[in-house]
Amino acid sequence: MAQHQEMDKHAYVQDYYPDDFSLCYGCGRLNDKGLQIKTRWNGDETLTEYMPRPEHTAIPGFVYGGLAASLIDCHSTGTASLALYRRDGHALGDDVPVPRCVTASLKTEFLKPTPLGPMMTIRGHITEVGKRKVIVQTELIVDGVVCVRGEVIAVMAPASMTGGHQ
Amino acid sequence: MAQHQEMDKHAYVQDYYPDDFSLCYGCGRLNDKGLQIKTRWNGDETLTEYMPRPEHTAIPGFVYGGLAASLIDCHSTGTASLALYRRDGHALGDDVPVPRCVTASLKTEFLKPTPLGPMMTIRGHITEVGKRKVIVQTELIVDGVVCVRGEVIAVMAPASMTGGHQ
Repeated sequence: MAQHQEMDKHAYVQDYYPDDFSLCYGCGRLNDKGLQIKTRWNGDETLTEYMPRPEHTAIPGFVYGGLAASLIDCHSTGTASLALYRRDGHALGDDVPVPRCVTASLKTEFLKPTPLGPMMTIRGHITEVGKRKVIVQTELIVDGVVCVRGEVIAVMAPASMTGGHQ
Repeated sequence: MAQHQEMDKHAYVQDYYPDDFSLCYGCGRLNDKGLQIKTRWNGDETLTEYMPRPEHTAIPGFVYGGLAASLIDCHSTGTASLALYRRDGHALGDDVPVPRCVTASLKTEFLKPTPLGPMMTIRGHITEVGKRKVIVQTELIVDGVVCVRGEVIAVMAPASMTGGHQ
């Protein structure tokens, strides 16, 4: 199992979402106008790195909060997919579809202004894995400083959103 | 005063931000790649309407959560500016700069999937106006249904973000 899970260390969950679920503005690999964020395991935590675009400004020099919220949102639904998949004994690359999760609740606390320019790192710490629900605590870090803290409750996408298949 | 305040009924706060503070991806009138949302008084509440772009999808047919969070975020900082300005006896158009606020905390609760297509309406209800802090409760409504509920604590932009001037 350890070797099996080792396989997904450098694989990104968004590359394994079914095509129909890969159009999200935040994390869909098939949305060419979107952010296309990528999330992977990093030990027992999860990691997303994102380089903001110059237009992602708030007040000049700082990242606008909506981007931080968007990154934390999609990072956390990706983390939830990874957590449910691993809980069920799978690693990315297995011949079993990755579950697609959506956000039930998102909280973001802006601790410090987020400088616009350097790479942004989002770390996810999984605090609860239920049958269909995952809770993720996140930190958004720039230059070693935690600028935004987030908490997301993600759930498997309901049938009303997926046309019945998951 | 009533007539004075009546003036800003159809004016949008973002049109009165100083140019330096009008580059925000969410609400800056000078950010031509951004969302350029517009927020105004509607009685004692505030109102933003936004037509999502086709690429703002989550799972096909639904709005991605990061957009909802972004709209609630900028709607609420705009609401905070309006609230502080009115508290000080001003209406948009007065020869006094509008205060620029930033988000300290943002909570969003996704009650129902948000359909992608129709106009999105965000309503803000102001529950607290402090010296430099405003708390705004928001509802994001599509086709008469409250899809997302938000709470934002907004504060006047700190000097560290504005280069000392406000």
